[in-house]
Amino acid sequence: MNEPIDLITSQENPRIKAARKLHTRKGRIAAGALLVEGVRLLSDAWRSGIRPEIVFYAPEMLGSDEGNALLASLQEAGCACFGCAPAVFAALAETVTPQGIAAVLPLPALPMPPQPTLILILDGIGDPGNAGTLIRSAEAAGADAVIVGPGTVDPFNDKVVRAGMGAHFRLPLRRCAGWNDVTALLPAEMAWYVADAHGGAAYDTVDWRQPSAIVVGSEAHGPSPHVSERSTGILIPMAGSTESLNAAIAGSVILFEAARWRRTAV
Amino acid sequence: MNEPIDLITSQENPRIKAARKLHTRKGRIAAGALLVEGVRLLSDAWRSGIRPEIVFYAPEMLGSDEGNALLASLQEAGCACFGCAPAVFAALAETVTPQGIAAVLPLPALPMPPQPTLILILDGIGDPGNAGTLIRSAEAAGADAVIVGPGTVDPFNDKVVRAGMGAHFRLPLRRCAGWNDVTALLPAEMAWYVADAHGGAAYDTVDWRQPSAIVVGSEAHGPSPHVSERSTGILIPMAGSTESLNAAIAGSVILFEAARWRRTAV
Repeated sequence: MNEPIDLITSQENPRIKAARKLHTRKGRIAAGALLVEGVRLLSDAWRSGIRPEIVFYAPEMLGSDEGNALLASLQEAGCACFGCAPAVFAALAETVTPQGIAAVLPLPALPMPPQPTLILILDGIGDPGNAGTLIRSAEAAGADAVIVGPGTVDPFNDKVVRAGMGAHFRLPLRRCAGWNDVTALLPAEMAWYVADAHGGAAYDTVDWRQPSAIVVGSEAHGPSPHVSERSTGILIPMAGSTESLNAAIAGSVILFEAARWRRTAV
Repeated sequence: MNEPIDLITSQENPRIKAARKLHTRKGRIAAGALLVEGVRLLSDAWRSGIRPEIVFYAPEMLGSDEGNALLASLQEAGCACFGCAPAVFAALAETVTPQGIAAVLPLPALPMPPQPTLILILDGIGDPGNAGTLIRSAEAAGADAVIVGPGTVDPFNDKVVRAGMGAHFRLPLRRCAGWNDVTALLPAEMAWYVADAHGGAAYDTVDWRQPSAIVVGSEAHGPSPHVSERSTGILIPMAGSTESLNAAIAGSVILFEAARWRRTAV
């Protein structure tokens, strides 16, 4: 089974060339699509109801049962699936040890909930691993959406998507070019909180049952001026000589404190 | 000032060759030393009372005031400081944009506290960024020490030290080759807790004022058999379809819940 009749054997194949353009932000925006690699991430997308535009696979690299089952499921559903020679697939993939399956997916555009009560805002997060990990934590903590503010890495960057572990397909994400756009997306009465090593109330004394936005600022430069002005500073008390936490850690600790309040507070 | 008379101009210089061996675990163990790069990390080590065995610097790369002040302070204290040609320094450094200062430091060996009340145990953490971030979080959350169990990346690996942001110089760290060694280091009455997606009490219902060890297992394989047997499973409740958290996030969320109990619980 899954025996392809025609393999794509040239890196100059137009479908391959078009898919490779999705490794850049410009290419993703122009096509309204992203390229996702790997059995786990594609299964997450497929289970979330996202139908691939094109699937590429390398029969010789697709070793696992899960991978073959996913491919069969995509083929049965009538998705356009193209077998590739290993060298063509390796040139398409960005991972070091590609799993032999990748797909072009439409950029996720899940609707924002009408009355959000917990939002994560990324403010100048430059590290793709931190951005993706924060998106993953936001979903796990029950946030309604993630807003990607100015100066943050593109959330559909390959590394961000990999660190997100599928959260990109299940949680509404909005990219905003300016802070006015961010403000317009959120209820006016929503309180904004930003981690601030220099003061404010302790993060566990905020009433997180109220509609709240948690802003995580750049590890290098801290929060942007707009965010500092709009937000209440909150402090994560720290022991020893520690001056700060990794941005993904600080944001996640606050997200899970909010989740704890929302789950347990009377 | 800081005008070196003799620059090391050859990568074959014996001091340079010896220092480069410290990029491997074997080299670090043989020498009982590690090589640390960058103004921030070296300042942290120096402030923590760790005296460099040898300092290397590249006058042309050491641009910042902080870097020059650190070098002057090390020279005044009588540390052996060697100027290097840029190409020699670049070959010594592992960072992409080296800051022009690096030093050989004795491997930190801070004493374990006699009666520890909060310990972090790393169980098969393979990702250097996760390991370093967890060490950084452990210090910030007030843990007494970090135990590096079998199967975890070497805590003095360059990337782990960088992600640790100086915590390596302030918090006792112990590497253990086997679980018997771990057990021997800790009070018998200490309770061990491990994050477990499949059950146990919620992580915020544990009485963290009691002497506790928090074990973080491998993201790929989960906790090791010894840890599963010795530990109580605890659950971080998650929303949506999220199956797990990044290992550094899960460990840090639990560490800061323990810190919150120890700070605020009556």
